[in-house]
Amino acid sequence: MSIRDADLVLALDFGGTKHTAGLTRRGERAWLATAREFAPGHATAADDLEIMLRLARGLLEGRRPGVTGVSFGGPVDFYSGTVRLSHHVPGWENHALALRLETELGAPAWVDNDANVAALGEFQFGAGQGCESLLYMTVSTGVGGGWVLKGHIWRGHDRMAGEIGHMVVEPGGPECVCGKRGCVERIASGTNIALQAREWLAAQPQRGGKLREMVKQDISAVDARTVAQAAAQGDDLAWEALARGARALGTGIGNAANLVNPQRFVLGGGVTKSGERWWQAVRAAARATALPEVQVEIVPAALGDEAPLWGAVALAINQA
Amino acid sequence: MSIRDADLVLALDFGGTKHTAGLTRRGERAWLATAREFAPGHATAADDLEIMLRLARGLLEGRRPGVTGVSFGGPVDFYSGTVRLSHHVPGWENHALALRLETELGAPAWVDNDANVAALGEFQFGAGQGCESLLYMTVSTGVGGGWVLKGHIWRGHDRMAGEIGHMVVEPGGPECVCGKRGCVERIASGTNIALQAREWLAAQPQRGGKLREMVKQDISAVDARTVAQAAAQGDDLAWEALARGARALGTGIGNAANLVNPQRFVLGGGVTKSGERWWQAVRAAARATALPEVQVEIVPAALGDEAPLWGAVALAINQA
Repeated sequence: MSIRDADLVLALDFGGTKHTAGLTRRGERAWLATAREFAPGHATAADDLEIMLRLARGLLEGRRPGVTGVSFGGPVDFYSGTVRLSHHVPGWENHALALRLETELGAPAWVDNDANVAALGEFQFGAGQGCESLLYMTVSTGVGGGWVLKGHIWRGHDRMAGEIGHMVVEPGGPECVCGKRGCVERIASGTNIALQAREWLAAQPQRGGKLREMVKQDISAVDARTVAQAAAQGDDLAWEALARGARALGTGIGNAANLVNPQRFVLGGGVTKSGERWWQAVRAAARATALPEVQVEIVPAALGDEAPLWGAVALAINQA
Repeated sequence: MSIRDADLVLALDFGGTKHTAGLTRRGERAWLATAREFAPGHATAADDLEIMLRLARGLLEGRRPGVTGVSFGGPVDFYSGTVRLSHHVPGWENHALALRLETELGAPAWVDNDANVAALGEFQFGAGQGCESLLYMTVSTGVGGGWVLKGHIWRGHDRMAGEIGHMVVEPGGPECVCGKRGCVERIASGTNIALQAREWLAAQPQRGGKLREMVKQDISAVDARTVAQAAAQGDDLAWEALARGARALGTGIGNAANLVNPQRFVLGGGVTKSGERWWQAVRAAARATALPEVQVEIVPAALGDEAPLWGAVALAINQA
């Protein structure tokens, strides 16, 4: 049996395509070491686990940690430590991940979904420090969210709280993956900003010259990043696709502000790198939607890609 | 100095038009006595206070209560016990109501707005018993709401949480008193159901026969109750006005369910007496808006007009 070092905190981030592990000490704000590996194509849950355990053991070098915190990219039942499923990788259905990690690593393990864990990370170590309440949102291929209320993750009765991506803001709008129409995610996510731009490029041959140039006339190559770049260079079509997303997002934030009135909204994810004009459009829509008495503070996430990993540290040390 | 009876709990409900006081004992579920008085027209804060203190002293018969709980029909800062203003009665601006009541009645007093207090009342004594979280909504002349999360009122950073009435559900819809368009309240409140019906009656002379009959052809006499009655008798125009309100309300509830995922939604107020078809329409719209994994339980309030008064009891005994 390996030696237990009670102050060691192991943090694991099971992402859709890459897995990351970090090792730190309780009370510290720097990593002793981190390790990352991309998942192979057609990976299964068993592959993901094997990769992560290899990364973790590499960092631990024979020691047992005091506690393990885990961020998982998919729905999780925190209280039982069970992954419900992964939307990307087969084999995760009702997987007792916390128990498995406890057995393998010899320390208590706490698992939650990535949005909740990243929210806690920003709250404890990032852009939400000093807040009593926040909604963290990731605006990326999808739009997800996680609440911290009175210093604790608010999970909701079915552990589904935070789904601001599926708030309807354009009734009768385009159909979302969830089956409804006009959800925040269906308009504001990177995937859907790019889709909107491609649709407009196909339908309006006279417009979007800069964007077309950028992808060498191959419309199928347009993604959210090229849309943002073209918008920054003054391409109107690109800006309109981006602005429509920003308005949908801001409307969702304003509605959430009226409903829950958190102290701060913290926004991360690739789409938030779309430039100051995008931020202004988000803030303007949120302000126009919130009641005058409701303050709406919207700030960029501070931890970037490391939010889930630092959140996993927070999740672990808050329990232990 | 009067005698202090530490088990006595005094509950006060400052309504827009009527004031109610109740006296009970800690741990009991019945009133020792209650008293009610309608406010005179053009009343001021001083009038309201005088009426309420008279009612309270009548109940107390010379005794001092252990604690006083207060529901106020307007924005309140709970932590300082200060009323911010009344939308109906002048003179309440920044009124230190808790302090005044403590001085007058010789017992600690706790004050919050009526939606929060009613939410707590339903949670502790009504349709929310046994829940860990709920959103209470009153659907009346306006649409208000109050959260109970983990057994406590959730007030939000600016004490503005619960404003589901001003969630936008019909962008570009009719203009609301708040200045926005298509708010839940602007479509779903009793006032606005009646307004919608009157507009359609004026514009569509062939329709709404039963509703016209009911008000003896005086369209200006149409209110939410007559709309509901006509709808129950098969009047299509009346039902459409009612159904549009139900859909707006249900959409707001579904969005709130995705965002916060409370265990239960408790609905009170006059409009909720509009019949089973209205409830079905609310539930259908909420179910269509919430994600499949999110349960949405919508139930009628159990305490009726007494929700604020019993909530005031709960507010008082939870602090003391």
